[in-house]
Amino acid sequence: MIRRKDECRIEYREKMRDGNGTVRLTSLIAGPEELNNKGRLFSRITLNPGCSIGYHVHETDAELFYILTGTGAYSDNGTVVNVQPGDVTICETGHGHSITNTGEDVLELVAVIVYA
Amino acid sequence: MIRRKDECRIEYREKMRDGNGTVRLTSLIAGPEELNNKGRLFSRITLNPGCSIGYHVHETDAELFYILTGTGAYSDNGTVVNVQPGDVTICETGHGHSITNTGEDVLELVAVIVYA
Repeated sequence: MIRRKDECRIEYREKMRDGNGTVRLTSLIAGPEELNNKGRLFSRITLNPGCSIGYHVHETDAELFYILTGTGAYSDNGTVVNVQPGDVTICETGHGHSITNTGEDVLELVAVIVYA
Repeated sequence: MIRRKDECRIEYREKMRDGNGTVRLTSLIAGPEELNNKGRLFSRITLNPGCSIGYHVHETDAELFYILTGTGAYSDNGTVVNVQPGDVTICETGHGHSITNTGEDVLELVAVIVYA
């Protein structure tokens, strides 16, 4: 099946995980069943300059980010590193992460969450 | 953990699935364990103009494409449709698909494979 760009569900979340600003989440799937119930998220995430997703721990799943555009500061289970387009971040089950747009342009990434 | 862009494994496959030309696959994961063994692929796939991945059936898993750049012709289990940036394709388990770069620019997408 095909889901056209304008058919993808867009959600705006303020202070996501106690972060700053408003984060846009474009869901590329209708629900976990489109991932064969092996995960629950396949999304494009957009953060304007200064916006962030606050630090949180993935207790029952793991989340991967693939950076598309922009620059950010990523907390990798407490260690903050800079990330750029092409970089991949992996938050294993039981670990935590956060991400902040530290640049002047929009920070965009593809995120995938798979269950533990 | 972080995997930097230049640390991602790149593979070139000629006539992939009996398609045309050479396809570049940039693996964003080291292996299925980074998807908690819920899937086996999270990659950026690049097709030059005229290149294709031939038609094949996903018997034991499902594959999703998220189109980043370019334009293509996608066979959705036998029905060919045009795809553009932002579109999502879902090849369910037991279904088949193919993709051809029909444009003048590079066609790039993010692919995810989850097990059945």
